[in-house]
Amino acid sequence: MEKAMTTGLQLFSTMGSNETLKLSLDKIDIPAPKSEEIVIRIEASPINPTDLASMFGPADLTTLRNEQGEDSTELLADIPSKLMRMVKSRIDSPLATGSEGAGVVIEAGDSPEAQALIGKVVSVATGGHHGQYCCVDYSLVNPMPEGITPEQAASAFVNPMTALGLVETMHREGHKALVNTAAASNLGIMLNRICQADSIDIVNIVRKPEQEEILKEIGAQYIVNSSSETFRKDLFKALAETGATIAFDAIGGGKLGYEILACMEQVAASQMTSYNHYGSSVKKQLYTYGRLDLRPTVINAGLGFAWNVGGWLLFNFLADTDSETIQRMYKRVADEITTTFASHYAKKISLEDAISVNVVAEYGRMATGEKYLILPHSQKIRSSQVQNCLK
Amino acid sequence: MEKAMTTGLQLFSTMGSNETLKLSLDKIDIPAPKSEEIVIRIEASPINPTDLASMFGPADLTTLRNEQGEDSTELLADIPSKLMRMVKSRIDSPLATGSEGAGVVIEAGDSPEAQALIGKVVSVATGGHHGQYCCVDYSLVNPMPEGITPEQAASAFVNPMTALGLVETMHREGHKALVNTAAASNLGIMLNRICQADSIDIVNIVRKPEQEEILKEIGAQYIVNSSSETFRKDLFKALAETGATIAFDAIGGGKLGYEILACMEQVAASQMTSYNHYGSSVKKQLYTYGRLDLRPTVINAGLGFAWNVGGWLLFNFLADTDSETIQRMYKRVADEITTTFASHYAKKISLEDAISVNVVAEYGRMATGEKYLILPHSQKIRSSQVQNCLK
Repeated sequence: MEKAMTTGLQLFSTMGSNETLKLSLDKIDIPAPKSEEIVIRIEASPINPTDLASMFGPADLTTLRNEQGEDSTELLADIPSKLMRMVKSRIDSPLATGSEGAGVVIEAGDSPEAQALIGKVVSVATGGHHGQYCCVDYSLVNPMPEGITPEQAASAFVNPMTALGLVETMHREGHKALVNTAAASNLGIMLNRICQADSIDIVNIVRKPEQEEILKEIGAQYIVNSSSETFRKDLFKALAETGATIAFDAIGGGKLGYEILACMEQVAASQMTSYNHYGSSVKKQLYTYGRLDLRPTVINAGLGFAWNVGGWLLFNFLADTDSETIQRMYKRVADEITTTFASHYAKKISLEDAISVNVVAEYGRMATGEKYLILPHSQKIRSSQVQNCLK
Repeated sequence: MEKAMTTGLQLFSTMGSNETLKLSLDKIDIPAPKSEEIVIRIEASPINPTDLASMFGPADLTTLRNEQGEDSTELLADIPSKLMRMVKSRIDSPLATGSEGAGVVIEAGDSPEAQALIGKVVSVATGGHHGQYCCVDYSLVNPMPEGITPEQAASAFVNPMTALGLVETMHREGHKALVNTAAASNLGIMLNRICQADSIDIVNIVRKPEQEEILKEIGAQYIVNSSSETFRKDLFKALAETGATIAFDAIGGGKLGYEILACMEQVAASQMTSYNHYGSSVKKQLYTYGRLDLRPTVINAGLGFAWNVGGWLLFNFLADTDSETIQRMYKRVADEITTTFASHYAKKISLEDAISVNVVAEYGRMATGEKYLILPHSQKIRSSQVQNCLK
């Protein structure tokens, strides 16, 4: 048992100077925990969109192939020469993938706080969770209530904390209602549940009728379809009714963000009693928290001067947030992990599956928003080549 | 004397529903000052770029013509039909132009603060200062030191307070050095003088060699020419040396703002010790305080998430600023009005000149950055048609 704790399999992504991406499963040693540290046996870790970016970067996925590496099978793909500059800061440096996960605390340092977590299910997001074990500071994990399984807690960080962080940002910056795009996503649904519980108006922007249906089913009140001919009119009405002056945009590129700000400014202008050629003084904020569309973001003139467009990233938000607020957010996620913050997975796979050409190709064909869950200790992984890690 | 105080000439701009711009000189009554109010005899008021926007809006300046109106001569121009929507909130409502000016306090309400200003030269920016008199609350003027003339104080508000406001914004948001574009402007020169006095590094971006010379002459240390082939390299060097992470942009449209942010991110990335596919966590801010270029603002991907682009407007800044800070800024402007904040004018004109086709056409041919000064009580105005206002 002691020995198994200290060595585990970990998924690594390497952007090679030979213009080849390599995904490999390697054995790593887990250090013995220091006083404040704990060792977690990771039982479940999702493949989030952000993980796909870390795993595959700009590699050409039509060239995916499995090859036998030094110790085990590897997944390879070509990186187009002209895109190598995008990864220049990580060339030939293996990156441990997996932004979040959950598991059971199996070992702890001698501090009472660390010791208290032994045997508990915790979620964690320090990175490198597409692996079997990790050793982290006890203060960086979110302990789950009794009875919650690691699979239920696997996605307890990125989407739940982002959803709560967006609402926190709205309050902190003095807005009373919000807009979200790509609103039928996992995150969008969590955001609607939070807003319903907290009596906050949320304007949901989607682009397909079936996405409107998803949101109607969970009781969303304001749903606007950007593909509709009446989009601008519908958006104006929703913004006027809710008073939303902050928007969170997962799309990033193109003109949608500008259109939302312009519509907010129109609402503000319609409520002004006198002309001002600088536009309204109502503060309008757009945050880009994703980049589903890589085209440039286009901001036209005509917004006045009281507007802001910026990037929103969970890690930057947390760095700007006091620990009391973060603990309050953690607790809410833990308390509501099977309701507000429940996640669903299209498929559960092993670590070996994650580097299989067939599985990855299948993954690539899934609808946006669906994701796979890696079970790092799944039986399927017990093939001969990695057996020796799993005593 | 009493009577002259209460009636004065005022320049008005009207966007007519007949698709015609009208600039006219009209007599207006100035109310007797209430307890906290003062009446200022405006002696000098500049035509700022922002005033040109208020005066002419989207009118076609090739159609300028003088016509005899009901009481006096008027300046007319056609407004292209398709641009009428730009002025829809001010159609047929005469707008008193003139964003700032200076003059002598000739009457005051009974409060001690108002009384104390009688006979003093003050600068003011409550609007409608292309006119002979105004009545405002005493707290809204900036009293000038003994010996300062109204002509010296005429531009004591918009550019000086903007320049100080940009530096204040830099400090408030935690940046240590700044970038300015269109840097050889009146405002840009003031900003350099402030930064020199306060030991703040400023990166000046210009686009012509003669603008580089203007800045060299006043001792600017970092001057980068955006038309140069080595622009990106020069900018990187200046940003790396100064650590500037906030930029103020007078241009607004196009890609320059993005290029500045991207270069800031490159500097930040070059100082990172490990790879992060979200980019750096160094906060990069771009504020647009002017819109010399009306094309859309284009923000490409690749900035990471720690960036913000927003509008910056003096009036919004002041609304967010405590009165102690504003008074400190006022005092510095007053103390340094003939040095740091000295303005120069290409020509001094009368109110009548301001609606003369020939004068306006000449104005339109001037270099960007040069401006005219209106002297509302100038002798030239004493033509028969307006004589009766000037007893």
